[in-house]
Amino acid sequence: MSDRGETAHVPWGPPYLLYLGSATDELSIKTARGLAYWRPQWCLGQHRRRDCTVTLGLPDLALDQAKARGANTMVIGAANAGGVMGEEIVADAIAALDAGLHVASGLHHKLRDHPAIVAAAQRNQRALFDARAAGPGIPVGNGRPRSGRRLLTVGTDCSVGKMYTALALERSLRRRGHPADFRATGQTGILIAGAGIPVDAVVADFVSGAAESISPARPDGGWDLIEGQGSLFHPSYAGVSLGLLHGSQPDALVLCHEPTRRHMRGLPEYPVPDLRACMEANLAAARLTNPAVRPIGIALNTSGLPAHEAADICQRIGALFGLPCEDPVTMGVESLVDHLIASFPN
Amino acid sequence: MSDRGETAHVPWGPPYLLYLGSATDELSIKTARGLAYWRPQWCLGQHRRRDCTVTLGLPDLALDQAKARGANTMVIGAANAGGVMGEEIVADAIAALDAGLHVASGLHHKLRDHPAIVAAAQRNQRALFDARAAGPGIPVGNGRPRSGRRLLTVGTDCSVGKMYTALALERSLRRRGHPADFRATGQTGILIAGAGIPVDAVVADFVSGAAESISPARPDGGWDLIEGQGSLFHPSYAGVSLGLLHGSQPDALVLCHEPTRRHMRGLPEYPVPDLRACMEANLAAARLTNPAVRPIGIALNTSGLPAHEAADICQRIGALFGLPCEDPVTMGVESLVDHLIASFPN
Repeated sequence: MSDRGETAHVPWGPPYLLYLGSATDELSIKTARGLAYWRPQWCLGQHRRRDCTVTLGLPDLALDQAKARGANTMVIGAANAGGVMGEEIVADAIAALDAGLHVASGLHHKLRDHPAIVAAAQRNQRALFDARAAGPGIPVGNGRPRSGRRLLTVGTDCSVGKMYTALALERSLRRRGHPADFRATGQTGILIAGAGIPVDAVVADFVSGAAESISPARPDGGWDLIEGQGSLFHPSYAGVSLGLLHGSQPDALVLCHEPTRRHMRGLPEYPVPDLRACMEANLAAARLTNPAVRPIGIALNTSGLPAHEAADICQRIGALFGLPCEDPVTMGVESLVDHLIASFPN
Repeated sequence: MSDRGETAHVPWGPPYLLYLGSATDELSIKTARGLAYWRPQWCLGQHRRRDCTVTLGLPDLALDQAKARGANTMVIGAANAGGVMGEEIVADAIAALDAGLHVASGLHHKLRDHPAIVAAAQRNQRALFDARAAGPGIPVGNGRPRSGRRLLTVGTDCSVGKMYTALALERSLRRRGHPADFRATGQTGILIAGAGIPVDAVVADFVSGAAESISPARPDGGWDLIEGQGSLFHPSYAGVSLGLLHGSQPDALVLCHEPTRRHMRGLPEYPVPDLRACMEANLAAARLTNPAVRPIGIALNTSGLPAHEAADICQRIGALFGLPCEDPVTMGVESLVDHLIASFPN
């Protein structure tokens, strides 16, 4: 099985040059950092402007240097405020195309909406890829059972580790020799997987259909690890989460949570939901399309806590649910995978 | 308060000529029938091709006749299979524009996507309106409480009477002297209201924001009657229903149901949910953005039942919930409105 699965035919792809532009904070380079963390073998170097103050620890490469070393695609993995594609980014994208690189972007504004970028791509016969644009042909969800096993990461809120958890589960399952594929639903995940659908950019009627599309029937007994989005308890985005839950028809759920989060992301009036209520609500909704769905564990993002507190809270929450609870980044996901395999023996 | 509310500035609008084309079944003219039923004062006549076998009972008018009698807009209220805009419809839309009428459509395929229709509109300085196209500028939902009162019609399934119920409630409240506005979320409702957002055509991240937009703060103590969509229990569309529920922040819910329906629309494997479970799930989800939400009653579409069975089932379901239960079309909604007013006295 290739790392990039069924999309190996698209012209853009690794090796990557990661574009950081003029980024000055960690949050704005989270797409690039996700790629460098999960697919280090694909990332040849980084490309930074003079005023950039953050680094991925990769070699700094000029565009022609990167091309000479074998880079195939420059990934614009740094967002301005609002995901806007400023003049600098446009100029650098054009320069990359002129240097012979394809260009992929996780920004909200699309490469294809800039005539000068489109012209440079045509001039150089290079490809443009907007990871946040949903392609055509997504069907309405049909709710029909399909073969294969699927695990969905759900969350108490946005940005609590749903993508990292799904990727960590993929890695652990593969290391143990189980067929397993991360299924991406957001722009960073799509750049990491080389495939996927940005479900929050899909027209509302097609969200469950998009989830069905990215995790089709699989006869090999392996697992699809589907990247969750949002939260059933987020007033802005819960509809996306529910459509994704129904379309995924998950056999297994992992609940993701950030224990220092005080309120829902962007909404100070809304407290983070109770963990048990959140798990129950997700299981109840998931039963509509898969009555046999099971909770497998809890994944905490404990980056805001000292190590001993992180261990304590994992133990406490694990005991509360009677399920494994770990931080996928600092502790791994081995106890979750043990429980997953034990829960689905064949 | 004008019937058309804040959209009186758009060029298209009543009086209407209702286009039935070559329709041969009732289902395909449901948009036209909805307009003729709910806004008879706006509907001057119908326009049919020779092979059309259905009628709204309105005068048959040629395009120039309709224009001479004061028609402003031809409404394409008949769908081919799949909502496709066939050659006949395109030719007739162009003829209507050439006769000096604006053209509005509730079809899935857009008027604006046909260059010949766009050219005819420009040539005649007439407007085109696609009721199924979501306009730009819809914000992300913010979940903040807002003034005014809102009632949302929710359902066990698609096509169980959510739009008719909301319109019947608007009519009854207005007759009793209460400020009340139907808020449309689907193409037929939008043509009836002259305003609204087709929430199933909105990008998924913006569904709750769309619901907030169409039912803004209102300081007059009146009611917004918001047209529900889909069902929390429909595997294809539940995400739309949940986003609409959260964005509406409803004070009151009316549950709509079609008692002869055996399975979810389009999905024979999925039974219609239990009425009480459906009401509870809607209330539980609605509490996220409005903890004080109350169930007000049940609206049944009993068109598939003899009159005495219809009366029986309304009584039985009403007793089960301890709430009024009526068929809005054959029985009216007076007991629901009585209970609504009693539940929210000021």
